[in-house]
Amino acid sequence: MTDPAQDTVDVERVLAEWGAVTQDAVLSRIPDDRHSAFLYDVMRDYPSRPSKFLRPALCLAACECFGGQVAEALDAAVAIELMHNAFLIHDDIADGSVQRRGRPTLHEAHGIGTALNAGDGLAVLAQKTLRQAVRGLDVGLGARLLDEFDLMSARTIEGQAMELGWAANGLTDVRTEDYLDLVMHKSCWYTTIHPLRIGAIIGSRGAADVEPMIRFGFHLGAAFQIRDDVLNLVGDEGTYGKEIGGDLYEGKRTLMLIHLSEVATGSDRALLDDYLRADRSGRTDSLVAEVMAMMERHGSITFAQAYGDTIADEAHKAFEIAFASAPPSPARDFIEALIPYMLDRNR
Amino acid sequence: MTDPAQDTVDVERVLAEWGAVTQDAVLSRIPDDRHSAFLYDVMRDYPSRPSKFLRPALCLAACECFGGQVAEALDAAVAIELMHNAFLIHDDIADGSVQRRGRPTLHEAHGIGTALNAGDGLAVLAQKTLRQAVRGLDVGLGARLLDEFDLMSARTIEGQAMELGWAANGLTDVRTEDYLDLVMHKSCWYTTIHPLRIGAIIGSRGAADVEPMIRFGFHLGAAFQIRDDVLNLVGDEGTYGKEIGGDLYEGKRTLMLIHLSEVATGSDRALLDDYLRADRSGRTDSLVAEVMAMMERHGSITFAQAYGDTIADEAHKAFEIAFASAPPSPARDFIEALIPYMLDRNR
Repeated sequence: MTDPAQDTVDVERVLAEWGAVTQDAVLSRIPDDRHSAFLYDVMRDYPSRPSKFLRPALCLAACECFGGQVAEALDAAVAIELMHNAFLIHDDIADGSVQRRGRPTLHEAHGIGTALNAGDGLAVLAQKTLRQAVRGLDVGLGARLLDEFDLMSARTIEGQAMELGWAANGLTDVRTEDYLDLVMHKSCWYTTIHPLRIGAIIGSRGAADVEPMIRFGFHLGAAFQIRDDVLNLVGDEGTYGKEIGGDLYEGKRTLMLIHLSEVATGSDRALLDDYLRADRSGRTDSLVAEVMAMMERHGSITFAQAYGDTIADEAHKAFEIAFASAPPSPARDFIEALIPYMLDRNR
Repeated sequence: MTDPAQDTVDVERVLAEWGAVTQDAVLSRIPDDRHSAFLYDVMRDYPSRPSKFLRPALCLAACECFGGQVAEALDAAVAIELMHNAFLIHDDIADGSVQRRGRPTLHEAHGIGTALNAGDGLAVLAQKTLRQAVRGLDVGLGARLLDEFDLMSARTIEGQAMELGWAANGLTDVRTEDYLDLVMHKSCWYTTIHPLRIGAIIGSRGAADVEPMIRFGFHLGAAFQIRDDVLNLVGDEGTYGKEIGGDLYEGKRTLMLIHLSEVATGSDRALLDDYLRADRSGRTDSLVAEVMAMMERHGSITFAQAYGDTIADEAHKAFEIAFASAPPSPARDFIEALIPYMLDRNR
């Protein structure tokens, strides 16, 4: 990190720097032996692809903010990134996604059984890595970090269940509060809240109050997720890395879809209800195109971006509280600069 | 446990007693809240079905053998049983199995996404439970148990990868050594070796030499797996709980199949090679019936049972070494009585 002033932080560059460190460490953790062809090489696939490394960067930056060294939090950051990749693999299977980070999803390339097992392998390796991370720490502090990891895993799995439940029930009346509740569980805990808390706990040797990280991480993570949902509709496939419109084929409940279902009337409403009640095979190319056209006509995408801006304002306020005791530093500037970055990013 | 003499141990009764204790504890660990419908109720499904509870019983018995109380090892036994159910759910998805413990598999009942996520939920809960189990222990002893859990998880996942690799490659030349190598990884570590080692470590407060448990657990677990493979062909569906012949439809490499591929010649050999190279859709009812008829004609099932008897002899020898320092007790008699039980059982 070289830029001290927050408004000149090159977020992409800092992400790339810390990302490279984390990626090397992640890949070095995965064994290479006679089980490689159907396990360890498969486990290495997603972590080898280009990605943002947002989660480890948040963990490492939070550690620095509260007085720690990057090296102290690296194993924890690696564990977070391993778990992230495990979630991605299993999510892609559940959603029937075809593309991830610009290439075929793992189950498309290797079949469901091998992909599922590689995801399990990454989750096991994440636990092992985390336990090595806490081995040098005070016992009480180590137990706190492991509890944080359990909590994060449980919230993420609950979020996944919420989303699967909505899809299974063909739910047509998802409200904005429900969406935010989902995002809180499924995305924010593991993308922002957990990395921030873990980093702050390690950096401060347990002294930092990490309770306000929940509110900050929620708003930061929600901004991230809203932009992710928007990019899924209007992004450039090469930069974004997933199939554009994939969420619409999956029937994913997004802010755009919620907005549309609040404003659509008449034949638009009827068409939308058909779409919401359909299963994946019923969401044909033409039905998806019609829903997309309705979203544009009713300004649903503009609405979602504007909603994201409101969330970002809240994130700034929450940041000031969560990082009140952290002295000025490049790491602190970086975390603050992530707030606008979340809504501007194209990948 | 009431019968002191080994030859009069009622294995089924002891399993039922300790199984009831473990099952209650497992079910009480799974939350019940607004996430129940698509998560916690789904996680409770397999653990609620009738099963043998072999793994927790081994753990509890080994703990008693080496001087501990059942209560000291109960949380560890619960963690083992939770992880077992997580593996079952993911295996059933990978294998496309339709029945488990006498009812539809979880993905048949709830879809792949919800079943996969419930498996992840059970694995996370297993980790959490295990950590609670070690909280009251000496730090070094606790770390040893957690390392054992990591090792068991890694071996099981490697075993799953081996089996998936064989199926993906349409391997026609699997040898008995390969089969035993697979069984060691995929079944023995988590079914026998790990529960025995964990129980012995807890019961002896870390003093017992658990190295010989590997050899004993391997032979005990191999006997278990060979009988499982045989029951899959000749068992009673109601008692066994899985679809009879399911392994043949999955193309699972079993001792019977290896024996058959060693003795089949001419048109039998050609038919067998067609079967081995086919994918699941190519393994038609008539092809499966022909392979089954060949196994009966060539004595492959008799061969497998006889091989199991040889393995059981080795298990007895290994038992004497592994439990040399354990004084006579009902728990010790129970573990010894499990050796013949493994090959006689019908469920």
